[in-house]
Amino acid sequence: MPEFLNLLPPNEALEKLLHAIPEDGIPAPETVPTAEALDRVLCQTIAAPHPLPPFDRSTVDGYALRAKDTFGANPSLPAYLTIAGEVDMGKPALQELEEGQAIVVHTGGMIPPGSDAVVMLEDTQWARESEIEILRAVAVGENILHEGEDVKSGDMVFRAGQRLRAQEIGGLMAFGVTQVQVARRPQVGILSTGDEVVPPDNTPQYGQVRDVNSYTLSALVHRAGGTPRRRGIVSDRRQDLLRAAKQAQREDDVLVVTAGSSVSARDITADVIGSLGSPGVLVHGVSIKPGKPTILAVADGVPMIGLPGNPVSALVSAGLFLVPVIQKLLGFERNPRSASASAKLSVNVASKAGREDYLPVSLSETADGLVAEPVYGRSNLIFTLVRADGLVRIPAESTGVPAGTSVEVRLF
Amino acid sequence: MPEFLNLLPPNEALEKLLHAIPEDGIPAPETVPTAEALDRVLCQTIAAPHPLPPFDRSTVDGYALRAKDTFGANPSLPAYLTIAGEVDMGKPALQELEEGQAIVVHTGGMIPPGSDAVVMLEDTQWARESEIEILRAVAVGENILHEGEDVKSGDMVFRAGQRLRAQEIGGLMAFGVTQVQVARRPQVGILSTGDEVVPPDNTPQYGQVRDVNSYTLSALVHRAGGTPRRRGIVSDRRQDLLRAAKQAQREDDVLVVTAGSSVSARDITADVIGSLGSPGVLVHGVSIKPGKPTILAVADGVPMIGLPGNPVSALVSAGLFLVPVIQKLLGFERNPRSASASAKLSVNVASKAGREDYLPVSLSETADGLVAEPVYGRSNLIFTLVRADGLVRIPAESTGVPAGTSVEVRLF
Repeated sequence: MPEFLNLLPPNEALEKLLHAIPEDGIPAPETVPTAEALDRVLCQTIAAPHPLPPFDRSTVDGYALRAKDTFGANPSLPAYLTIAGEVDMGKPALQELEEGQAIVVHTGGMIPPGSDAVVMLEDTQWARESEIEILRAVAVGENILHEGEDVKSGDMVFRAGQRLRAQEIGGLMAFGVTQVQVARRPQVGILSTGDEVVPPDNTPQYGQVRDVNSYTLSALVHRAGGTPRRRGIVSDRRQDLLRAAKQAQREDDVLVVTAGSSVSARDITADVIGSLGSPGVLVHGVSIKPGKPTILAVADGVPMIGLPGNPVSALVSAGLFLVPVIQKLLGFERNPRSASASAKLSVNVASKAGREDYLPVSLSETADGLVAEPVYGRSNLIFTLVRADGLVRIPAESTGVPAGTSVEVRLF
Repeated sequence: MPEFLNLLPPNEALEKLLHAIPEDGIPAPETVPTAEALDRVLCQTIAAPHPLPPFDRSTVDGYALRAKDTFGANPSLPAYLTIAGEVDMGKPALQELEEGQAIVVHTGGMIPPGSDAVVMLEDTQWARESEIEILRAVAVGENILHEGEDVKSGDMVFRAGQRLRAQEIGGLMAFGVTQVQVARRPQVGILSTGDEVVPPDNTPQYGQVRDVNSYTLSALVHRAGGTPRRRGIVSDRRQDLLRAAKQAQREDDVLVVTAGSSVSARDITADVIGSLGSPGVLVHGVSIKPGKPTILAVADGVPMIGLPGNPVSALVSAGLFLVPVIQKLLGFERNPRSASASAKLSVNVASKAGREDYLPVSLSETADGLVAEPVYGRSNLIFTLVRADGLVRIPAESTGVPAGTSVEVRLF
């Protein structure tokens, strides 16, 4: 426990990092076709250029009429109206309805001038050529959707910082907004270090392992709305890392370095990141497990994150720190709610007070509801997470969670 | 209520549709680079070609040694060992460790032959040139991660039907699998009908409205893992719709038609879909609100869905029927858990027994937890959903849900 007391809690660490990102470091917006803007973040405020619906529409198939002409009508004493015409779909209703008349309208069709209600087809009966019986009284406004009932002209319908879902794409199209300004995807440079690490298409020599972190982090960046830029594997030598990091600092919006596993390799990472500009290293070590040796920095406007080399630690820590940085650069007004599920813990779980634990769990549906079973792996290799559906956060003040406790599982 | 009694409940309707999709209608797999396979569905089973880790590795920075050489060691009576060398990261450990020796190892480094434990740097002290003091006894196997401890050679590590998340991409890379067979994205033809509907970049004449459904449905298809193919707007005339639907049937894996809003336009849709092959229309009307006039069909192997023309109904119904069809064509072993949140209803909600209601709600964080506030819109236009965060399902047997009830909100 004592070693964690000098470390910053994750929420404070994140706060410090986000606070140090300058506003002018946020990428400029770009214009894209609305049809391709799903999940992008809007950078402009849009007012409705016209009302929606743009005209009074019928909500049913039936007859437009004057409500007062149906007063007192019932099946045994119907009102008789003359059919004076029909409103074609997609055409303006030009004919003025007169007293004692009915005009055929379809669902979504325009309401003719002079009418103030629509009677449903089911409430009418054919009488004779050009005449119908109205079997019940209708009220003024019945079955009419009025112009501007959904949106009034000039209403602020879209705000900067909104994520565009299917319905926003549709709403923009309803107003003819076929191009939108959205936040450019932040480019995230990803550097893997470690003398033992080789690219996945190489056959590792005895003592070497393939690069995993560059690819898991690329996937995470992509999901969060950024563009990953894999910058390859650099050796644990200071000058190699410095050269690669400097280039990333010039070209990328964010830099992520997965440190080599040894303490000396991590020290080199912190040293290099710290030398790239001000304010430099803000956090060196966070009271979380896994992910303790995380380094958070901003160097001359570029956020930089040094992640542990262990694949599980790297992915958990990136979820806690890298994803919020990307979200900040995207200008989210409100970050998207992460997918989660409530489940009961299958076993007692121990935890050290003073650090936040992130426990990988697998979920299974039982008669008793959803159950979360911890996936233990001393190895902490990537397959611990392959076997898991999500993470359970165990707060810093907890010394353990008993079996059967209801926990919130953050789904991957 | 009576009108809903002749309609099929949504789960039975879906069952009928999925059951009628022939197995040979499922698209053939394709091979893609693993680095670009995020969120794709694997079509092959993969066994581990080698163990993970591929060799015994140290989990700490320290000294490899023989555990028995540290027997009884403590700070006042340390064990003295001779430093016989160092294992470089990424290099095989070739030097055989002999009795009374220690070899420097780094985290992740290979364990030299002859050693059976690693002592952490923190538990040692420099004595003199080439000699260290070991300040505590270590057990056999301590701080060693054994070959195959995460995955044994030949273990079935990936199954067909699995969705590839960040960790699966990483796990595949760890084994050097840089190309994978995944399910081809089903191509979904989308046809909008309605004489009143014009493309979004047109200025609607009085009586016309812009096409919204083609775009909201494209977004939904994209999210579900399919490729949307917008086939434009066709008139409400039978022969126009028939020609367009036949072409889609030849070229697409699934066809979605949003019907015109009027009853006659919907009847034409059902008629056209029913004429395209066997078994034809399976379901015509579902006991849900919104979405009742949904048509489900399979015509000569191609699933076809006729959706209501109303944008809210179309999107809700597509979520219930189109998304599972896409998931079936992708060959999911277990469908991805949809994002949801538990919240308390802010007001009483009425519901008719005999139909399932899907109520759009907006979420807000309060001192009392998450609260779901219904978004009412008589208009049922797309902005009802723009204002909402998700849907609450009210089961068919319910006649209403009191304020304060805890409900599950399916997030958009």
